[in-house]
Amino acid sequence: MRHETPFDDDKLHEECGVFGVFGHPDAAALTALGLHALQHRGQEAAGIVSQDGKQFMSERRLGLVGDNFSREDVIRRLAGERAIGHTRYSTTGDTILRNVQPLFADLAEGGFAVAHNGNLTNAQALRHELVKRGSIFQSTSDTETIVHLIATSGFGRLTDRMIHALKQVEGAYSLVALTPDAMIGVRDPLGVRPLSLGKLENAWILASETCALDIIGADFVRDLDPGEMVVIRETGVETLRPFPAQSHRFCIFEYVYFARPDSYMEGSSVYEARKRIGMELARESHADADIVIPVPDSGTPAAIGYASEAGIPFELGIIRNHYVGRTFIEPTDNIRHLGVKLKHNANRALLEGKRVILVDDSIVRGTTSVKIVNMVREAGATEVHMRIASPPTTHSCFYGVDTPERSKLLASRMSVADMAKHIGVDSLAFISIDGLYRAMREPGRNSQQPQYCDACFTGDYPTTLTDHEDEATGNQLSLLTESV
Amino acid sequence: MRHETPFDDDKLHEECGVFGVFGHPDAAALTALGLHALQHRGQEAAGIVSQDGKQFMSERRLGLVGDNFSREDVIRRLAGERAIGHTRYSTTGDTILRNVQPLFADLAEGGFAVAHNGNLTNAQALRHELVKRGSIFQSTSDTETIVHLIATSGFGRLTDRMIHALKQVEGAYSLVALTPDAMIGVRDPLGVRPLSLGKLENAWILASETCALDIIGADFVRDLDPGEMVVIRETGVETLRPFPAQSHRFCIFEYVYFARPDSYMEGSSVYEARKRIGMELARESHADADIVIPVPDSGTPAAIGYASEAGIPFELGIIRNHYVGRTFIEPTDNIRHLGVKLKHNANRALLEGKRVILVDDSIVRGTTSVKIVNMVREAGATEVHMRIASPPTTHSCFYGVDTPERSKLLASRMSVADMAKHIGVDSLAFISIDGLYRAMREPGRNSQQPQYCDACFTGDYPTTLTDHEDEATGNQLSLLTESV
Amino acid sequence: MRHETPFDDDKLHEECGVFGVFGHPDAAALTALGLHALQHRGQEAAGIVSQDGKQFMSERRLGLVGDNFSREDVIRRLAGERAIGHTRYSTTGDTILRNVQPLFADLAEGGFAVAHNGNLTNAQALRHELVKRGSIFQSTSDTETIVHLIATSGFGRLTDRMIHALKQVEGAYSLVALTPDAMIGVRDPLGVRPLSLGKLENAWILASETCALDIIGADFVRDLDPGEMVVIRETGVETLRPFPAQSHRFCIFEYVYFARPDSYMEGSSVYEARKRIGMELARESHADADIVIPVPDSGTPAAIGYASEAGIPFELGIIRNHYVGRTFIEPTDNIRHLGVKLKHNANRALLEGKRVILVDDSIVRGTTSVKIVNMVREAGATEVHMRIASPPTTHSCFYGVDTPERSKLLASRMSVADMAKHIGVDSLAFISIDGLYRAMREPGRNSQQPQYCDACFTGDYPTTLTDHEDEATGNQLSLLTESV
Amino acid sequence: MRHETPFDDDKLHEECGVFGVFGHPDAAALTALGLHALQHRGQEAAGIVSQDGKQFMSERRLGLVGDNFSREDVIRRLAGERAIGHTRYSTTGDTILRNVQPLFADLAEGGFAVAHNGNLTNAQALRHELVKRGSIFQSTSDTETIVHLIATSGFGRLTDRMIHALKQVEGAYSLVALTPDAMIGVRDPLGVRPLSLGKLENAWILASETCALDIIGADFVRDLDPGEMVVIRETGVETLRPFPAQSHRFCIFEYVYFARPDSYMEGSSVYEARKRIGMELARESHADADIVIPVPDSGTPAAIGYASEAGIPFELGIIRNHYVGRTFIEPTDNIRHLGVKLKHNANRALLEGKRVILVDDSIVRGTTSVKIVNMVREAGATEVHMRIASPPTTHSCFYGVDTPERSKLLASRMSVADMAKHIGVDSLAFISIDGLYRAMREPGRNSQQPQYCDACFTGDYPTTLTDHEDEATGNQLSLLTESV
Repeated sequence: MRHETPFDDDKLHEECGVFGVFGHPDAAALTALGLHALQHRGQEAAGIVSQDGKQFMSERRLGLVGDNFSREDVIRRLAGERAIGHTRYSTTGDTILRNVQPLFADLAEGGFAVAHNGNLTNAQALRHELVKRGSIFQSTSDTETIVHLIATSGFGRLTDRMIHALKQVEGAYSLVALTPDAMIGVRDPLGVRPLSLGKLENAWILASETCALDIIGADFVRDLDPGEMVVIRETGVETLRPFPAQSHRFCIFEYVYFARPDSYMEGSSVYEARKRIGMELARESHADADIVIPVPDSGTPAAIGYASEAGIPFELGIIRNHYVGRTFIEPTDNIRHLGVKLKHNANRALLEGKRVILVDDSIVRGTTSVKIVNMVREAGATEVHMRIASPPTTHSCFYGVDTPERSKLLASRMSVADMAKHIGVDSLAFISIDGLYRAMREPGRNSQQPQYCDACFTGDYPTTLTDHEDEATGNQLSLLTESV
Repeated sequence: MRHETPFDDDKLHEECGVFGVFGHPDAAALTALGLHALQHRGQEAAGIVSQDGKQFMSERRLGLVGDNFSREDVIRRLAGERAIGHTRYSTTGDTILRNVQPLFADLAEGGFAVAHNGNLTNAQALRHELVKRGSIFQSTSDTETIVHLIATSGFGRLTDRMIHALKQVEGAYSLVALTPDAMIGVRDPLGVRPLSLGKLENAWILASETCALDIIGADFVRDLDPGEMVVIRETGVETLRPFPAQSHRFCIFEYVYFARPDSYMEGSSVYEARKRIGMELARESHADADIVIPVPDSGTPAAIGYASEAGIPFELGIIRNHYVGRTFIEPTDNIRHLGVKLKHNANRALLEGKRVILVDDSIVRGTTSVKIVNMVREAGATEVHMRIASPPTTHSCFYGVDTPERSKLLASRMSVADMAKHIGVDSLAFISIDGLYRAMREPGRNSQQPQYCDACFTGDYPTTLTDHEDEATGNQLSLLTESV
Repeated sequence: MRHETPFDDDKLHEECGVFGVFGHPDAAALTALGLHALQHRGQEAAGIVSQDGKQFMSERRLGLVGDNFSREDVIRRLAGERAIGHTRYSTTGDTILRNVQPLFADLAEGGFAVAHNGNLTNAQALRHELVKRGSIFQSTSDTETIVHLIATSGFGRLTDRMIHALKQVEGAYSLVALTPDAMIGVRDPLGVRPLSLGKLENAWILASETCALDIIGADFVRDLDPGEMVVIRETGVETLRPFPAQSHRFCIFEYVYFARPDSYMEGSSVYEARKRIGMELARESHADADIVIPVPDSGTPAAIGYASEAGIPFELGIIRNHYVGRTFIEPTDNIRHLGVKLKHNANRALLEGKRVILVDDSIVRGTTSVKIVNMVREAGATEVHMRIASPPTTHSCFYGVDTPERSKLLASRMSVADMAKHIGVDSLAFISIDGLYRAMREPGRNSQQPQYCDACFTGDYPTTLTDHEDEATGNQLSLLTESV
Repeated sequence: MRHETPFDDDKLHEECGVFGVFGHPDAAALTALGLHALQHRGQEAAGIVSQDGKQFMSERRLGLVGDNFSREDVIRRLAGERAIGHTRYSTTGDTILRNVQPLFADLAEGGFAVAHNGNLTNAQALRHELVKRGSIFQSTSDTETIVHLIATSGFGRLTDRMIHALKQVEGAYSLVALTPDAMIGVRDPLGVRPLSLGKLENAWILASETCALDIIGADFVRDLDPGEMVVIRETGVETLRPFPAQSHRFCIFEYVYFARPDSYMEGSSVYEARKRIGMELARESHADADIVIPVPDSGTPAAIGYASEAGIPFELGIIRNHYVGRTFIEPTDNIRHLGVKLKHNANRALLEGKRVILVDDSIVRGTTSVKIVNMVREAGATEVHMRIASPPTTHSCFYGVDTPERSKLLASRMSVADMAKHIGVDSLAFISIDGLYRAMREPGRNSQQPQYCDACFTGDYPTTLTDHEDEATGNQLSLLTESV
């Protein structure tokens, strides 16, 4: 598995990216490109389902998009002018093909394929009910719950069945679906996960991030609204708003780390947002130092912002090895400690004798922070001041992000002072929650009605957590294990 | 794909073999051996599901049993003292993993795995009903219909649900299933496909043929009766007979070609039956000749019987190449005709100047018969008299055998005289249908109530053929195509 | 690895087959077919080198011909109207690509490719000399010694260099070589290994056995004479006889086991020779019995001969599983003994209560004989009389056959009576050496000047054994080990 | 193939990195790590040869080090306390295993393995001589010429043979070799390619760059001198200086692009050198602009230097996709132009309405410069001023760098003004050759005796170019093509 940053073993992982094309002769090829641009949202597996007006074609593979979907024979099999796709990061051990999306079902009304970014918080409870009534689940994914709710809904039209199904689920979802005559995009009423609408010539595009529109040269039209369902047919785009109005709670961590810096989210540049976070951080917690260096690459925009605000030179103190490949297995115990240098190396010539401000986007378990700081010190830095471009991560996410359980989150176990000691820095500071909102151009956090979902920093979850509160339902989803 | 005989491109193909073990520490390994012995019943794919008292483990692979299930890691993952397995030959293009058996479902009562030999004749009609009620099918196999019928049955106990399901289906089935606490074996009321019970130490074995008992050193206990369901639990074997009594119709073609010659079927040795067919054939249609040669290998026992009855020497006139490998693709048009010699060669030294009786088990399309006879003549045979150890194959089978559609069966298109001309032989004779029954030690065929299913020779099908009569239901089973 | 007979783990293995085409637009495809027909002479690896008048193209692969050389892309890369090929069985662990033939060298005069059936008995001594003078060996094959002798020969023309080289070697060789303007075939002066010349339209063919001519529809022209070198150019075929005349010593074991029964060797049908051996054996060592059964498949022609001479019915008492695949690894110790039944099964219905004559072609270590006899007895045979279609194998072969070292040969350790006891038969008889010669239509063995090489039965080696006598040179051929 | 920079299709490629360990129990594992750190010097293939005091073991693979040499079984096979390794970039189509280094030969004195960074300029002429005398070449690599010169040298000791051989070659080489009792490192008399000596506990290390010492935690001891040969035995390190003294000509392009920024070369930090080049460039060719952006990643240090000297903000205007995978094949013609965005995307939010200074390290063919500038303009930049951190690349390199032939080098075909127009920038400036030498802390270029090899900028080649001057010898190296 290839990761975005050298230290991302200790990052939160977005679980998915979705993409769809309706009305282009190269629908599957464009979807492959779009998924490639969304690769940072999931690197374990990817899939594309296309539709040629009569039949659905599916190709799902473990591994990177570019390694699987740039083969001509694969794309050729995905015929038709309509296609949807999915990239997947999975938290569980079940990285097997039957869990890879888009999921597909032969419904009485015809085929139905769906790709899902997000996570439901009552999927298990619903699943138990469905199984009791005779539904047979093939995957352990919560997305399949939605599919069975649709299959067994009493409504006649597919969009009505889908709305019926979605009204029963809670949690976060941005869905892209393909039916015999339409492509459907829908965001949950809170709008936790992003979903954008684009246009390329006469074709409509749906994408998790705008960088996936850029790669195919599509124009950005607009973000879908929270709770909006768009139904794209040959006759045009229809908008439905089937859910009661609700205040919005977009995931603020998309700005901190998940999204690509060249994407726009809810109208804002992610790169500029990160720079503003760095500037706010510099204002909140200045340190006297000779250089500002990022933990590459996710800390770089915030470090540039910090450096410019603080008037301290920005430098590359840690050099990446660009050829990481699969995890390099250190073959013997006595050289296992060398592993930390597989992905990067300290720039000794620069660091020697310097007071260093080290900027990172977040601290999760803290395991790699310890190693980085140690490496920077061994290269001769005299002081290391760590600055983090997000508040302390204290709570798990249940909306489509792979967070360790709470007890493994460093910030849920230690005070900032203890964390500084543990990591081995001369000083450690996180941006404040209000500072983060200010960087988002809000006056501060509205604690009565927070403008974003920030549950990972505050524990303030915007939905009920049925599956997690009622642990009785939390038993094994499938009695089957399989290796392929 | 490796085939049993050099000329089996033009044979009927059995679609499956099933095997199960209950109560042995090496359950999965024994199942792999059993499936290996049943490899002639299906070479496209194989699967094993094991159960360790808590969980089910599944491994399904395309290809031969020996190539996939002799790996230690695969067997190690199949933990537990209970296992069932399946070898598959598929008639359709959909040789993809989701069609490979045993099928598995998480039912409300726990896991359920099933392996099926045979074919249903109303599966599509039932499938359409189930889909309308919200069942989502994953495969295109008729076996999944049984699983959904079980999942949606209103009955409480799993055996009752299974009986409820089986009472709705028509066609041929020998099933081996695994539930949380039992292994179940069941034959359809006509007993079209075989299923034997064996014992190895304290473990119970179910197997399509007795040769699969031999390979693991198990003792043959008895064949299951038509319509019998055995439920094997730790507490012992329970026998149920849930279906109304019916006369039996065991598939006579198992004796002619499908079964391995070292198996016993319904109490009779297959090798001896084939020799008796050859002897009967010699009595029915003598020819003056110098040697009797079999079309290897399936014609060999009948040829030995023919030679001994006719008093003409048995010789090997056609030599096999034992290293056939995958289909050898002839790379250029002008050498494509050489392809016929990839699998065998005429024994010129023997054939030159001889009058030859060539014995084969059956003629399907007749395509390879033409090539064989031509090859034998080119090697110098002065006369070729072809003798076939079955009556003319005039009708398709719908009970688990891959037959070409009727119009492709040579015997449905031509008289025997025309066939002789077409194939290029000096004389051609098939055993008569009564001769075949006599070789089975019957006085002849009881046309009121035939003792066997001989529909492929007579068109006398023992069940209604719902899916085939009502072509309205015969549309596409799944709208999805997939390459993996 | 797939083997010709179920019991061939305990057979001698031929090490190679060679094939060549000169002057046909499908040269490489025909060579692939020819090698496929020679697959029984070596199943570990295969290679083809073609030549298009300017350049040589090589494809060498581990595994079966049909699995590697029926791919269109492979054949397309082997352009040109000239091609030679090789199938390989290797005795050592070094089954790596650099040992796979044909070997190729860029000589000063142009490219040179060579394929070799046989084995030299002074290759190591010559190799040591060549390395001392600066030659760098890439393989551990004795064939490379010939190539370096050619490269460093002082002669001008390539044929002269080749003759110069061959005059320095001792042992057995049938070579097929490709030079910039010719295909060359040559047999050693004793003619130990076979080599035939054929013709297909305007193209000349060289092949180890005539069955490889049959597969491509080529006409058999003649066997090369021992010591003959044919140089095939566009202008025609030139014959050279560069070696002093010598009496011939063709390998008699080619008749007993190596060659395919449908081949002719030195003018005689191998199938007929084997039947005559069986008849001679029946005359020499009759036994009262009910049936004659072969150890399949190599014992079959001799068993047919035995049965007809003895007037006892020929039957199939042992049934093969045709789907052997790679070696089936028995996954746990307690079922490892079952392994013997992976490849075959006793035909219990036939054997029960019978007195059996079991015919095999040879006994090497005797390990599988013990298992077969045991299996036949367990199936109910009351008496087992074993008859072997060759004299006791008491000596190793150094001429291109993989024999175990002498101490592992059962017949070099035991008397026939002790062997019978060890194997567990009621009686055991081998054909006498004179009986074997009589079956070859000789009056008997001429011990002054034996008509065949029969060293494996007599220890009478037709060449000096330099490498084996002077063990000082017998050290490690290469200091390198490699896994690819 | 994964490349260091998004635009490196249009970069010069270093052909090799070498590494060696003598005297460490984890020799092969350390070598794998060292090669991983040198992966930027060659990504096509890699190999390791180890030695355990008796035998040599070799593993050579196509692909990345991390993908092939982090497998435990591979490392386990490479036993012993001594190992050398090589990473390879190849200019020709012959990316086949026999060309992958280290090369190995069984010499009369024992085994000999060698890994080579650099390129000879008279290898072909020498090769023709050697073939005439009977040497058989296996590869098309110039390194094998050295091996045959050693094998056929008349000298007795291996070091004398090696010196004898190297005195006959001209060109650039840094070699690491393994003999039965020593590891040998040697640099050519000009010192064109780097080679450093390091120490880890009691083990000696040789490495192309110091970043490969860092990854294993080894101490940097010193660079080898040009013309120096070190012979490392259990008894210690011996230094030989067998060549006449000569002025040194280290490759200045190592500083510009090849070496990793965290390496030291000839005592200087590569990162600092690049920053100084950027600063010199800012002084030489200022432009009024709003932001300085690098072409990632190779232009980054120079851009940081430029920005700080010019007082203009450094920003990330081009965002990389970190998951490039293998070359993404654009499946249809009409979307092929999208390919340029597979590896990166313009940061539209930043670029819109800005005057941009775009810093890159070099321009080779100029093909990607055109695309980058176009992308930056499409994202809204109002002015684009391109600044190149090296002089115009006008000549091919023959010393181990893959340069296109001269006619394909943009700077050999056009003036700077024409290049600016061709690329589509508002202004274009290269650093001057004297400016480049000043950044290296020289007063300027000494044209009488240049302090570096700068032939790619000046055409002033430090050796004769025998193979290239005498095109008569430049014919095909091998008559063989092979696909594996």
